[in-house]
Amino acid sequence: MVVFTPSGKRGHFATGTPILTAARKLGVDLDSVCGGRGICSKCQIQPGFGEFSKHGLTSNETALSDWNSVEQRYKDKRGLLDGRRLGCQATVQGDIVIDVPPDSQVHRQVVRKAASARAMVMDPAVRTYYVEVAEPDMHTPTGDLERLGTALKEQWDINGITAGMSVLRKLQPVLRKGKWTCTVTLHKGHQDSVHRILDIAPGFNEMRLYGLAIDLGSTTIAAHLTDLRTGEVAASSGIMNPQIRFGEDLMSRVSYSMMNPGGDVEMTTSVRMALNALTDTLSAEAEIQPAQIMEAVFVCNPVMHHLLLGIDPVELGQAPFALATSKSLSLHAGDLELSCMNPAARIFILPCIAGHVGADAAAVALSEAPDQQDELTLIVDVGTNAELLLGNKTKVLACSSPTGPAFEGAQISSGQRAAPGAIERIEINTTTKEPRFQVIGCGFWSDEAAFDAAIATTGVTGICGSGIIEAVAEMRMAGLLDSKGLIGSPVQTGTARCILEGRTHSYVIHDGTADGGPMITVTQTDIRAIQLAKSALYAGARLLMDEMGTDTVERVVLAGAFGAHISPKHAMVLGMIPDVPLDKVTSAGNAAGTGARIALCSVTARAAIEVTVRKIIKVETAIEPKFQEHFVNANAIPHATDPFTILRSIAPLPDALFNTQGSGDGGGRRRRRAS
Amino acid sequence: MVVFTPSGKRGHFATGTPILTAARKLGVDLDSVCGGRGICSKCQIQPGFGEFSKHGLTSNETALSDWNSVEQRYKDKRGLLDGRRLGCQATVQGDIVIDVPPDSQVHRQVVRKAASARAMVMDPAVRTYYVEVAEPDMHTPTGDLERLGTALKEQWDINGITAGMSVLRKLQPVLRKGKWTCTVTLHKGHQDSVHRILDIAPGFNEMRLYGLAIDLGSTTIAAHLTDLRTGEVAASSGIMNPQIRFGEDLMSRVSYSMMNPGGDVEMTTSVRMALNALTDTLSAEAEIQPAQIMEAVFVCNPVMHHLLLGIDPVELGQAPFALATSKSLSLHAGDLELSCMNPAARIFILPCIAGHVGADAAAVALSEAPDQQDELTLIVDVGTNAELLLGNKTKVLACSSPTGPAFEGAQISSGQRAAPGAIERIEINTTTKEPRFQVIGCGFWSDEAAFDAAIATTGVTGICGSGIIEAVAEMRMAGLLDSKGLIGSPVQTGTARCILEGRTHSYVIHDGTADGGPMITVTQTDIRAIQLAKSALYAGARLLMDEMGTDTVERVVLAGAFGAHISPKHAMVLGMIPDVPLDKVTSAGNAAGTGARIALCSVTARAAIEVTVRKIIKVETAIEPKFQEHFVNANAIPHATDPFTILRSIAPLPDALFNTQGSGDGGGRRRRRAS
Repeated sequence: MVVFTPSGKRGHFATGTPILTAARKLGVDLDSVCGGRGICSKCQIQPGFGEFSKHGLTSNETALSDWNSVEQRYKDKRGLLDGRRLGCQATVQGDIVIDVPPDSQVHRQVVRKAASARAMVMDPAVRTYYVEVAEPDMHTPTGDLERLGTALKEQWDINGITAGMSVLRKLQPVLRKGKWTCTVTLHKGHQDSVHRILDIAPGFNEMRLYGLAIDLGSTTIAAHLTDLRTGEVAASSGIMNPQIRFGEDLMSRVSYSMMNPGGDVEMTTSVRMALNALTDTLSAEAEIQPAQIMEAVFVCNPVMHHLLLGIDPVELGQAPFALATSKSLSLHAGDLELSCMNPAARIFILPCIAGHVGADAAAVALSEAPDQQDELTLIVDVGTNAELLLGNKTKVLACSSPTGPAFEGAQISSGQRAAPGAIERIEINTTTKEPRFQVIGCGFWSDEAAFDAAIATTGVTGICGSGIIEAVAEMRMAGLLDSKGLIGSPVQTGTARCILEGRTHSYVIHDGTADGGPMITVTQTDIRAIQLAKSALYAGARLLMDEMGTDTVERVVLAGAFGAHISPKHAMVLGMIPDVPLDKVTSAGNAAGTGARIALCSVTARAAIEVTVRKIIKVETAIEPKFQEHFVNANAIPHATDPFTILRSIAPLPDALFNTQGSGDGGGRRRRRAS
Repeated sequence: MVVFTPSGKRGHFATGTPILTAARKLGVDLDSVCGGRGICSKCQIQPGFGEFSKHGLTSNETALSDWNSVEQRYKDKRGLLDGRRLGCQATVQGDIVIDVPPDSQVHRQVVRKAASARAMVMDPAVRTYYVEVAEPDMHTPTGDLERLGTALKEQWDINGITAGMSVLRKLQPVLRKGKWTCTVTLHKGHQDSVHRILDIAPGFNEMRLYGLAIDLGSTTIAAHLTDLRTGEVAASSGIMNPQIRFGEDLMSRVSYSMMNPGGDVEMTTSVRMALNALTDTLSAEAEIQPAQIMEAVFVCNPVMHHLLLGIDPVELGQAPFALATSKSLSLHAGDLELSCMNPAARIFILPCIAGHVGADAAAVALSEAPDQQDELTLIVDVGTNAELLLGNKTKVLACSSPTGPAFEGAQISSGQRAAPGAIERIEINTTTKEPRFQVIGCGFWSDEAAFDAAIATTGVTGICGSGIIEAVAEMRMAGLLDSKGLIGSPVQTGTARCILEGRTHSYVIHDGTADGGPMITVTQTDIRAIQLAKSALYAGARLLMDEMGTDTVERVVLAGAFGAHISPKHAMVLGMIPDVPLDKVTSAGNAAGTGARIALCSVTARAAIEVTVRKIIKVETAIEPKFQEHFVNANAIPHATDPFTILRSIAPLPDALFNTQGSGDGGGRRRRRAS
């Protein structure tokens, strides 16, 4: 009796059966690249000896064959951990328990960050196989490729292969150099009927293969170079999207294309060049060859999607926001002029959900799996354009909302990108109305003694996105800002930090002018920009809740790199997100990037998200009459009509109105702005 | 009752059923591109009225509906032949006989040249379809491509489409320009699981589509631009293969690649440039746009095959003559840098039979179908390298034989290419030993009065390939040449036309030196070159006959452009081909080119030849010990041991031997020379 752990699979085998053979017969997940030739060591197993009452057997040292010459040579030359054996060489001699360690499992699980507490199963589209190919025979002439196909069929049960020109060109010299043995890199996507040979190397080749998980955003492009066997990230890097010079947000890029013939081609070229540069950077950082990069998976919003593909995004700028194609795409690296990877590398682009809800939202859905939640979960991917998903096991809804760039610190008078010197945390004393703050790159609060020395090199330079959210929320809680978003006068607020600038007031957070630094204030215009952004976000969420037939959600997940830094309490004071217990607000980090990594590592996940995306119910904010009503009501801080009962139990929200003459200048109509 | 002719299919249909619908229900082959909208006129039918005793019905004018407005408008604007109706508009009103004219059949037969008496069925990989696509809907967002796929499924029952980048880029503007109607060009090869969109045009588009059937030879490249709907050849052209500058024959090109690093790339680039130039020439001649060329089918020998693909042919220069790939290939035009056709055009390359028997031989097998013959048929494709097929319904054998370029007039002292001024016919009077001849471009014999005037512009410039065969055979029959291939002296032959040149004799055919023209002779060296070539050819045929277990064949087919000009009797006197009745020797013209055309016009034929090629038994002349023995025996004219009984009954073959001292200088050993 042979028992495999952790699977618990068991069976009887003839004496002399290799452990690898036994594992395969039982369907135990035991890896092998060389097909049992004692070369690759991927089939390492750990025999257990002693009495196993749980399994009802006792095993002794003779239950496994002695070390044969192949196994001994491998150990002498390459080394093996104590207690490990090669599953293809060690044979069954009696009852035994065999443990398959995680690194010997093909479909090993990779534990992802604790936040989501879900594991990622390795099931990549790209894998390598070692094969021995029959030599050519003049009497039964066949091509080298055909004999390679036969070998893959016989040795790996792989049916059907194709090869592109780059492989065809090197096939003959490689087979001869390897003396009719080779390591082939095969690719099979979730919709492919045959395996595609991406590369071939002579003999047994242990070169690690990598893939790129790329989150192509309007503002930044982030990529993770990922080991396709282990799922580990070997290097991560991000660069600015060079399309910014054609327009800060998506609609301005669409406009650029409409106004400038060939403008779309310019933008396509610029982003592809940036991707090549980014790939080069990652290869250098991880010290790998470009030829080791075999696949890239993209997630992006629909406009980035079309510009990456070289499709003019003009249709995405106007109703009915028609996508050229919405399904996932499997392409050749050359199709996108991505030249800094293996010449045969493949591209996978996740499906788009709708004309405003792209493959990035699909990636968030893959990462956060709203369709598998019991609780009704709102997922907010905060960026220049916000994507929202609302759902649980019964159904999932999606929409996008044009928040604009205020949440990223843009269009804010003292706003800046998240960089050392930027205020990211702020507290305002409700009695004294005095602020204290933290800046990025410094662990001290501004009222602590060590602060000034700690920030000596960076200074205090501005407010980043999460800082401005805290600032506005703190101002509201401290009674410096009324529910309509008006900053009070020094008299109304009782603090000289509220200063008159023109016809409105600003709140001074930090005056660095004495040291030649900036005066950092929150102006009335800043407040209005934040109100516009948060109203759009909340109105989108409300629209989804309407469609779901509910006034409440049970859980909120903040996604996006920025989402990771938002304080849930302050976001709720602002009325960015619906009223839920604070412990039900979690951050998913860059969920879109995580979704890209999951898709890179698993074709099963690709197939699943394709099905999921088709089931998601799309809600179009641009044409929904109630969006405007929700938007106006959401202009108040936190909200004009929704009670926010949970929030009010934990946060002071003074009722004073500073302008008693009317509705003030808050809210109002605005046109759709997407990006 | 509706009866369709010529198929004879019949059925009952409700009054008002369109004829096109009735035809589809019965599986009658009635074409339609617009899907029954009265636009394309491909479904034209010819109703028959009167008494049809054969079909057991009588039909009158009321059996078909009156002309409706769509049909009438089509006739007024575009015209219809008398008696024709549109099958999609005319409806059943009573018993009727409907003839489907050939031009309305999708799978129409195209009668090929009388020689082969077989018809070609149109079943191209590329076809166009008119579809009406649903407009985008914000409430159920899908991509334009996905809605086009739905339309093709619903309107044409086409399941599964893919689109390359060039189509994706133009998809959105085309659909909008066509007001959500379009004509799509789809491609589906015999091994494809889905249709590939090659192109898309707004609205109903009648642009004719073309394909190229290309016979890529070592010396010449011939191409036929073929209408993919009718199978008609719109233009044909040929150019020299520019690789000739790297080596006249195949082995010298393989050597060039071995001796010069990057030499294979040079040769690949040169042939691809030539193909682009040839394509341009054909487009210009037929006055079509490059974008109308949607597919190219290639046939070629293995070395040309590899060089076209950009694969170093070095392995084909040495045993075991391994091909990189032997199966048929389906590629993108860009893979071969073929830029003078539609950017999405497809390439199909026929399968190779073996390392020396290429896709050109496969094309000959497709054209001449030895596997469907009752008679044991030897097919000889005469070129620089000869391919031989021997077989009948029971089995087919193949080999190649390195004849060298002598049969093409190369390596012959007075040899030249077939061009005006070249001697192509020759007769030698068996009594006077005087020759008379015809030259290309002139209908008169040289002893006719009008000859001199007729050749005034061209002169008599040399001897072409078929001329040299006739000259040598006529010399043998006139007793100027003995069976060992030795030219006799003036004394031995009784003619002063046998002149001494060095130590051997030459026979003077034409002395133009008085007029400043050439002296045209057949030298002893010429005879030896012809002997080497014909011995190789005959030895190959004998090897196949051995393998088949026979000493005779029943039919000989001469293929190759040159084969069309060879006189069967003279070829037999020379002992090029086995002894068969003269009326059993036929010419198939450029059978490889015909095979390429068949494959271009029919995916069914592609699938069939792929199967046939795998069944063909390959005989490798290079390693067969008996080849040398056959080669030596075949050196005699016609043959040292084979009786040639039929030939001797119709041609004088004097027994004299001019050199009685020994074996002379004929025959001897030679190394393999392939090209």
